Amino acid sequence: MITKYVYFFGAGQTEGKAEMRELLGGKGANLAEMANLDINVPPGFTITTEACATYFKNNNKFPQSLWNEVLANLKTLQKAMGKEFGGSDGPLLVSVRSGSRASMPGMMDTVLNLGLNPGTLKGLVGKTGNGRFAYDCYRRFIAMFSNVVLGIGGEHFEAILQRRKTRQQVEFDTELGVGDLKTLIKDFKALVKRKIGKPFPDDPLIQLRMTIEAVFNSWNTDRAVTYRRLNRIPDDWGTAVNVQSMVFGNMGPTSATGVVFTRDPATGEKIFYGEYMINAQGEDVVAGIRTPSPIANLEKDMPEVFETLTQVYKSLESHYKDMQDIEFTVQENKLYMLQTRSGKRTAAAAIRIAVDMVNEGLISKQEAILRVPATQVDQIFHPMVDPKAKLQVLGKGLGASPGAAAGKLVFTPERAMELSKNKERVILVRTETSPEDIHGMSVAQGILTAKGGMTSHAAVVARAMGKPCVSGLGELHVEPRKKRASLNGVVLREGDAITLDGTTGQVLAGKVPLTQPRVTSYFRQLMGWADKMRVLNVRANADTPHDALVAKEFGAQGIGLCRTEHMFFDEERILLMRKMIIAAKPKVREEAIKKLLPIQRSDFLQIFRVMEGMPVTIRLLDPPLHEFLPSTPAEIRILAKQMRTPATKLSKKIESLKEQNPMLGLRGCRLGIVFPDIYEMQVRALIEAACKLVKKGTKVLPEIMVPLVHHVNEFKIVRQHIDEVAAEVIGKAGVKLDYQVGTMIELPRAAVTADEIAKEADFFSFGTNDLTQTTLGLSRDDAGGFLSHYLENGVLMEDPFVSVDQKGVGALIAMAIEKGRAVNKKLHLGICGEHGGDPASIEFFNSLGLDYVSCSPFRVPTALLSAAQAAIQTPAP
Amino acid sequence: MITKYVYFFGAGQTEGKAEMRELLGGKGANLAEMANLDINVPPGFTITTEACATYFKNNNKFPQSLWNEVLANLKTLQKAMGKEFGGSDGPLLVSVRSGSRASMPGMMDTVLNLGLNPGTLKGLVGKTGNGRFAYDCYRRFIAMFSNVVLGIGGEHFEAILQRRKTRQQVEFDTELGVGDLKTLIKDFKALVKRKIGKPFPDDPLIQLRMTIEAVFNSWNTDRAVTYRRLNRIPDDWGTAVNVQSMVFGNMGPTSATGVVFTRDPATGEKIFYGEYMINAQGEDVVAGIRTPSPIANLEKDMPEVFETLTQVYKSLESHYKDMQDIEFTVQENKLYMLQTRSGKRTAAAAIRIAVDMVNEGLISKQEAILRVPATQVDQIFHPMVDPKAKLQVLGKGLGASPGAAAGKLVFTPERAMELSKNKERVILVRTETSPEDIHGMSVAQGILTAKGGMTSHAAVVARAMGKPCVSGLGELHVEPRKKRASLNGVVLREGDAITLDGTTGQVLAGKVPLTQPRVTSYFRQLMGWADKMRVLNVRANADTPHDALVAKEFGAQGIGLCRTEHMFFDEERILLMRKMIIAAKPKVREEAIKKLLPIQRSDFLQIFRVMEGMPVTIRLLDPPLHEFLPSTPAEIRILAKQMRTPATKLSKKIESLKEQNPMLGLRGCRLGIVFPDIYEMQVRALIEAACKLVKKGTKVLPEIMVPLVHHVNEFKIVRQHIDEVAAEVIGKAGVKLDYQVGTMIELPRAAVTADEIAKEADFFSFGTNDLTQTTLGLSRDDAGGFLSHYLENGVLMEDPFVSVDQKGVGALIAMAIEKGRAVNKKLHLGICGEHGGDPASIEFFNSLGLDYVSCSPFRVPTALLSAAQAAIQTPAP
Repeated sequence: MITKYVYFFGAGQTEGKAEMRELLGGKGANLAEMANLDINVPPGFTITTEACATYFKNNNKFPQSLWNEVLANLKTLQKAMGKEFGGSDGPLLVSVRSGSRASMPGMMDTVLNLGLNPGTLKGLVGKTGNGRFAYDCYRRFIAMFSNVVLGIGGEHFEAILQRRKTRQQVEFDTELGVGDLKTLIKDFKALVKRKIGKPFPDDPLIQLRMTIEAVFNSWNTDRAVTYRRLNRIPDDWGTAVNVQSMVFGNMGPTSATGVVFTRDPATGEKIFYGEYMINAQGEDVVAGIRTPSPIANLEKDMPEVFETLTQVYKSLESHYKDMQDIEFTVQENKLYMLQTRSGKRTAAAAIRIAVDMVNEGLISKQEAILRVPATQVDQIFHPMVDPKAKLQVLGKGLGASPGAAAGKLVFTPERAMELSKNKERVILVRTETSPEDIHGMSVAQGILTAKGGMTSHAAVVARAMGKPCVSGLGELHVEPRKKRASLNGVVLREGDAITLDGTTGQVLAGKVPLTQPRVTSYFRQLMGWADKMRVLNVRANADTPHDALVAKEFGAQGIGLCRTEHMFFDEERILLMRKMIIAAKPKVREEAIKKLLPIQRSDFLQIFRVMEGMPVTIRLLDPPLHEFLPSTPAEIRILAKQMRTPATKLSKKIESLKEQNPMLGLRGCRLGIVFPDIYEMQVRALIEAACKLVKKGTKVLPEIMVPLVHHVNEFKIVRQHIDEVAAEVIGKAGVKLDYQVGTMIELPRAAVTADEIAKEADFFSFGTNDLTQTTLGLSRDDAGGFLSHYLENGVLMEDPFVSVDQKGVGALIAMAIEKGRAVNKKLHLGICGEHGGDPASIEFFNSLGLDYVSCSPFRVPTALLSAAQAAIQTPAP
Repeated sequence: MITKYVYFFGAGQTEGKAEMRELLGGKGANLAEMANLDINVPPGFTITTEACATYFKNNNKFPQSLWNEVLANLKTLQKAMGKEFGGSDGPLLVSVRSGSRASMPGMMDTVLNLGLNPGTLKGLVGKTGNGRFAYDCYRRFIAMFSNVVLGIGGEHFEAILQRRKTRQQVEFDTELGVGDLKTLIKDFKALVKRKIGKPFPDDPLIQLRMTIEAVFNSWNTDRAVTYRRLNRIPDDWGTAVNVQSMVFGNMGPTSATGVVFTRDPATGEKIFYGEYMINAQGEDVVAGIRTPSPIANLEKDMPEVFETLTQVYKSLESHYKDMQDIEFTVQENKLYMLQTRSGKRTAAAAIRIAVDMVNEGLISKQEAILRVPATQVDQIFHPMVDPKAKLQVLGKGLGASPGAAAGKLVFTPERAMELSKNKERVILVRTETSPEDIHGMSVAQGILTAKGGMTSHAAVVARAMGKPCVSGLGELHVEPRKKRASLNGVVLREGDAITLDGTTGQVLAGKVPLTQPRVTSYFRQLMGWADKMRVLNVRANADTPHDALVAKEFGAQGIGLCRTEHMFFDEERILLMRKMIIAAKPKVREEAIKKLLPIQRSDFLQIFRVMEGMPVTIRLLDPPLHEFLPSTPAEIRILAKQMRTPATKLSKKIESLKEQNPMLGLRGCRLGIVFPDIYEMQVRALIEAACKLVKKGTKVLPEIMVPLVHHVNEFKIVRQHIDEVAAEVIGKAGVKLDYQVGTMIELPRAAVTADEIAKEADFFSFGTNDLTQTTLGLSRDDAGGFLSHYLENGVLMEDPFVSVDQKGVGALIAMAIEKGRAVNKKLHLGICGEHGGDPASIEFFNSLGLDYVSCSPFRVPTALLSAAQAAIQTPAP
């Protein structure tokens, strides 16, 4: 059987349809579908993606039958249009466009007016009676073809055009006359001959064949290849090519061109939205000479066309059951549809459209939930850069915590606090942040760092605080002492206005206007549906009563990770903590711990109260002790004074606590085993707090979590200690309190030996951050440089700290679940890494049959929606 | 059925035998076995380990029938001995000793002369006619019983004894008369009454029962529990108790006591070896009043006894088919055997005895191989501390590289080099070593560090150099600037003499005499047998031609790991390396790399030549680049001068390359991907070297190894690059060269996705050091402190960097092997971590069906022997 490589559309002879997207590409399939719906599209034909794929397999040669099929379809097209391709009397002109299965920037877009040469040009002049129009088409065609097919830089043609305009002392292209255009055409052709050593091709068939090849080849430009890698698009898909007869919106006052949306893409409101321009082509809109009119005016300008257009847009939306983005052209009062596709929209619009369409009976609730990209949901909780604002992008780092913020630059947390006391809005800029910067971060509007990835300290803290953060901006060089930084050649000084877009990672000059967040009834309705469909529960990572409150408001069903160490960074507490760590004498140490107890108890009391009736997972102290210690000589001197110790002695002690690889050092339960009094204090504090509330009738569900277990013996020892302390406190309080003791699974060995650990534990919580670090041997703090190289060069398809590595880390999680449940049917399983808020990861976790995910409070809605989407698409096992 | 708890031995009524070791303990089973062989043992009975275990299960109460059984056996014993326990006429006295399945220090050892009281004492005086002897027995019994059964510190009795000796102005106990002894007995009893509020028990049955309980309870002393944890002895085994009639070697010139070995335990020579003392008990030998005589003299002193003893020792050795360590007592010309057991021996003796016994037809070659502890084999290649030397132990660290060395202390590598130029032997003492210390290490006799474990830099380098090293001696505080260190209160200064025992980890004061190594024909014979039985091959980790030569001499079958980075630490090379790393301009960088190429090529050429016909696995550059950079300001200034760069700029650059967790940072193949020119240079150098040799007819088998792969794409990219460079070089050379390209499996993700990687790779080499670090989340550089806490407290039974963690790391290795072989039948598999030289790990690797292990050259004989032992004990799957 001979493969069919070309499909005709329009003029009542359409061969394709919407479902043939893989073969015809998105554009081709939609053109065929519109034609099938009796919507007037300029006829043409689509060369399949398969033809392209075969072209590459043939070492860049056309498949045997392809050209003959093209010629046959061209014949059909000539007949349908009543015009001859290359004919001298009102010739057939075509556009040639690429169109792959997925929308793919970076590929060749369009050649218009193909078929023009000195002969057909005369026919066009004759037919339209508009010389200026025809010559303008021709000079544009030469420039466009030369650029995209012959590979001659557009700037050369631009320079010739510019010289002519300067000579004629005009500002716009439209001010050039036919004479000028003729000169331009001559000059353009001379340029081409100089550049390629051959004349510009006049034969329309040669033009067509070269353009089809150029579209095929554009599949393999660097930009397209990179885009495919980043978006996991297989290289062997190939692109389709659409050859379509030209229609002209610039043939006088009865012609027009426009772009419309079937609903408002910004708000989702059900109104016909868009704009058009009389006597214009798409390019003219871009040129910005005239302002387009709102689509409503078309009713007055061209009432019949408007009526037809209204019918068309309604039928397209109800056919596709989604908001459509439609391009049209009116040529001499006749409406042609050039393209329809699902329209891009804001998160707010996506939500409103989905809910409205359910209420209109167009789609089901499940479909509505699937329509809203979970990754976009948190947009509606954050200020965003106004889409209408003009932007000067200074640089682009990682979008580490979503939302946008504008303010004055500061380089130290101290300065941030000073300025914020005067109600100034500040952006804190650091090489990287450390726990010492917490105060400055908490008063800043946003945080920008030169180092660190999606799970660096800055990123994690900013997300927990719900503040925008751009991290890992390698080009940024910060010099805090000089109160300045440089970024891609621009010097930024303290007090300069700057705007961060933590969603895209962009750093913008000046104070850019922002849109303010608004939670709508549409959102509440959608989330209500999602809640009913979810299988996975969603908890939040919250370290303070405030975080807990935010989490609960966003719909969290408990706290999956309360990091007790963040409680110690308060000014007064950190001193006690430091005393405890540094203390040479046991008595000093014990005293410090004793003073920390009531402080921790009060923290836990408040969190338990906020989360009444919901589980609260409290992780015992995890980070290496030296993280609590000062690092600069000045800070050490201050602490030495406070502790009445010589600074040199203190320095030595601090030095001795430093580790070569602190990630893999004395932290987690290792601390709890070597220094049992710290964990004892924490357990005492939390059980005392729980008992106090239980006495008052508050329901408390504490889950005590032991971090960094690699061997069951570690867990056994710590658990025994916990149970002893708890029994003592509960006994003394004389109440009934149920609590659970479980462990993080965050080291590969814990996953591999999960059966041993599960026998002793009430729950597992997968710490996917550390599990990723150890499984991949990749420090998130150090990966910045080479991880971006890996992502840009396709070594890795995805940042494993953003979306969980399913084959590696995921396989270990699956193994741990299987081994754990095999020996302990009651074992409760959750995720508390950063991946708990990532939709792709949530889908994976749902498929593994976990009980819950836990993420930062601002990610909770995203997680709730993702969980519902996962349940709809891949039911849990 | 009622459980039998007591087994009689001797006097023709023996109930046990050697095979009942589990029930009767080692001592009890051997006493029964000797009795069965008609060897004269003082009769008695053994209370089983089961009785002890039941005692603990019963909350420390005797199992019901136990005491009655003891009484019945006592009756049998009285009858056999013709003496009454507690009788007033020549009473029956017994010894009570513990005896578990495995030899276990830390448990109660012995109570002698049990049964004495004022009544029986008189009988003993009457029967022996030796009042001094009888009273001496009694005072010793009171002190011994009070100490081990009543828990009264021995020092109290010692003080009373000392006062009496002072008062009588005598030096030795033996100089005290009967009157003194009677006073002592009175004073001892008064002390007991004061301490326990009750009189010393006179009833022999009560004495016996209390002592049996005390032996049971000694199973649970802290020391015994710790010992069991460290040696993986289950807590529920329990100990047996041996109650045996007393015989006395101190009843005049016809009595004696002695300890003999059936062969020389130091050399293995087949001579009757040992010593004895006329008219003495074991204690007297310990007291050191008289010098014992060599056993040969006994032939003259007691010819009949000697003849009997000779028959006995020969029959015991041929019965047990092993060299025996035998205790005997002669009471009034009658020979009693008190104990026989396999004798401890040096490695040299173990080898000679095993080989001799094969030649004598006593044991098989397999048995001979199993008889030699593989862990001891490398003793014979190193100087050892002379076992006869008196030692002053200053401290004990980790025995990180075996052998002993003595020399003058130095604190800097520079000083080490200065002194060594004057032919001084030096010991380099550092807090920890770094690659910068290599020169100092290479001239030192041994290395001592305060930090770092078994796989720290110092340990790994010292093992590779075959030098003794003690690492991780936490009590050592080094102050290089002051040229001094302190260790457990002792101040050590530069130039002080010191001796390191890298086998035991001991640091000894002064210059201790050492024994020199000697490889014997016995060793060669044994290894010849081992070679025929091995399944696993053994390669060596060797980085230099010298290492390769040593490895080959020791029997290595190839190089399993050639670390190219160690080649860069030479003075001239490190500068090029640093230039390459620091270079801001590509040209400077390229030049440095160009200069490194011939240097590397020459290294490879020499190694390939040495290893002709054997595989050589070369690992491409692995460590983080900053490891090559200077760290102190002085070093930075020097480099800045050499590079003609401002020191501040250089400092900044170095700072920017530092990582928070370099273990998990930019290293391994990540370097090769981000900076492909380094790997390209290395591949070019090694393939050029190989081609040059191939041209001369030398057989070269290069295996190129890519480190730190976590994702198959990394391997694909690097392999493609390697193959391209290799094809170019081979093509240019016009020779035929086969080479392999494989990868380290040293990250958990690589193990989990081994099937993907195996499709692309020719071989896997498991880097168990890094795999242990990442699987357990444990940095070997930082684990020192808490890992020792873990081992001491039984959290972990074994240092995972010494013996491979089979459940965690081992499970990942097993998974990788299975997945790898499933997709690539030709896949070649080896181990190149430190575990490659550990016998327990080798046994495990053998059971997994690996092709080879690779270890440091000096470990090769150990590995060869272990591999044979593993093959004999657990055939590969």
